[in-house]
Amino acid sequence: MMGAPRAPGTVMADSSDILARLADTLATRLPANGGDPQGSYVAKLLAKGPDAFLKKIGEEATELVMAAKDAAPDRVVAETADLWFHCMVALTHFGLRPEDVLAELARREGLSGLEEKARRAT
Amino acid sequence: MMGAPRAPGTVMADSSDILARLADTLATRLPANGGDPQGSYVAKLLAKGPDAFLKKIGEEATELVMAAKDAAPDRVVAETADLWFHCMVALTHFGLRPEDVLAELARREGLSGLEEKARRAT
Amino acid sequence: MMGAPRAPGTVMADSSDILARLADTLATRLPANGGDPQGSYVAKLLAKGPDAFLKKIGEEATELVMAAKDAAPDRVVAETADLWFHCMVALTHFGLRPEDVLAELARREGLSGLEEKARRAT
Amino acid sequence: MMGAPRAPGTVMADSSDILARLADTLATRLPANGGDPQGSYVAKLLAKGPDAFLKKIGEEATELVMAAKDAAPDRVVAETADLWFHCMVALTHFGLRPEDVLAELARREGLSGLEEKARRAT
Repeated sequence: MMGAPRAPGTVMADSSDILARLADTLATRLPANGGDPQGSYVAKLLAKGPDAFLKKIGEEATELVMAAKDAAPDRVVAETADLWFHCMVALTHFGLRPEDVLAELARREGLSGLEEKARRAT
Repeated sequence: MMGAPRAPGTVMADSSDILARLADTLATRLPANGGDPQGSYVAKLLAKGPDAFLKKIGEEATELVMAAKDAAPDRVVAETADLWFHCMVALTHFGLRPEDVLAELARREGLSGLEEKARRAT
Repeated sequence: MMGAPRAPGTVMADSSDILARLADTLATRLPANGGDPQGSYVAKLLAKGPDAFLKKIGEEATELVMAAKDAAPDRVVAETADLWFHCMVALTHFGLRPEDVLAELARREGLSGLEEKARRAT
Repeated sequence: MMGAPRAPGTVMADSSDILARLADTLATRLPANGGDPQGSYVAKLLAKGPDAFLKKIGEEATELVMAAKDAAPDRVVAETADLWFHCMVALTHFGLRPEDVLAELARREGLSGLEEKARRAT
């Protein structure tokens, strides 16, 4: 999708692209894709296996809670980013994509209906 | 969906829209915006204050870890969605947006450069 | 309390007894020992299996973190008690005892040496 | 072990002593008591302040969950010890004692009644 030709005036390169591109990058760090544990933090996590990145999820969730208790917005953003990042490492390990998570969120919220509506409105 | 041809001027309703629209919906559940704790799970969490949704973040992080230990992809997706959802409730409480988190992820990964490049290419 | 003079022959009902007796009680809640999920919170957790009480460990750990961030000593005590309680449910599930944990703590801290010394001193 | 007859004057070195002695040792690591952050892991945690050891509580809780999911009894014991250890560091920071936690557990379980009974039985 990223490299698809786009007509002038298209609204583009938005935040979903960020998750999709990050997922693309993370996938290159998989052992099966030649990820180098010596040269990459993520490749090392993926090579070590689930416990390594799951431990980080527990740790980052705790750090987000502490940042929120301190009512420190910058740290809330940074810790949420850390947490989502390590969730995406977990998704990568299982061959899953952030789009799967977003689709699940949309399904629950009935937002796929909104998307449909937006499409018709153009 | 991602690779579908798009007419010039089409408003893209992709996955970033999902997070943005979810954030819009969550914001309507804030006490200051008339969110009704009786009628909405999120309004209740936001009315109770940080401990209520932070506790959920700890709980959902643990459930994600357990789903991953069971190597159950469907549950990994569902629990990640739960976790991200409650993170977004926390962001909402602080007047923050998922875009702030995505921007932080992009900044770290140097993806803002990619976005810039994509923009010049159009 | 520990160093208080004690009459000869007194049965010491001190804190280790608390953990040991709690463990005895928890063991009666195991399905194999006739624990009744309808009549007991712990029997229900043990009947449901690991995810039920492990989720509580994640939740109570988060609540302890929040109590500590609030610098609320009473809640720190109460949440630590909640956390240790659910850890003991997990130990019970695996046929383990709090004494196993205490022995591990003693081993690491070299406290078994202290115990030895105390014994020689009598 | 608990109910074993004991010679008059015997110093009891049982498991409650382990927690009490560990607490005594941890207290010497407090900055106010001259704990040296360079020379001691605990002194470093206590000098850094709550976030340092609270983060460990989140991390160790997650590791306990993973050990339990792997149904690995030895690791369940080791991770519970890690978790309780860092809880005791938190208690130390607040001037609290493991006896406070045990008293809370006893209170909830009605075990203080058992203690009373044991005392009368002598």
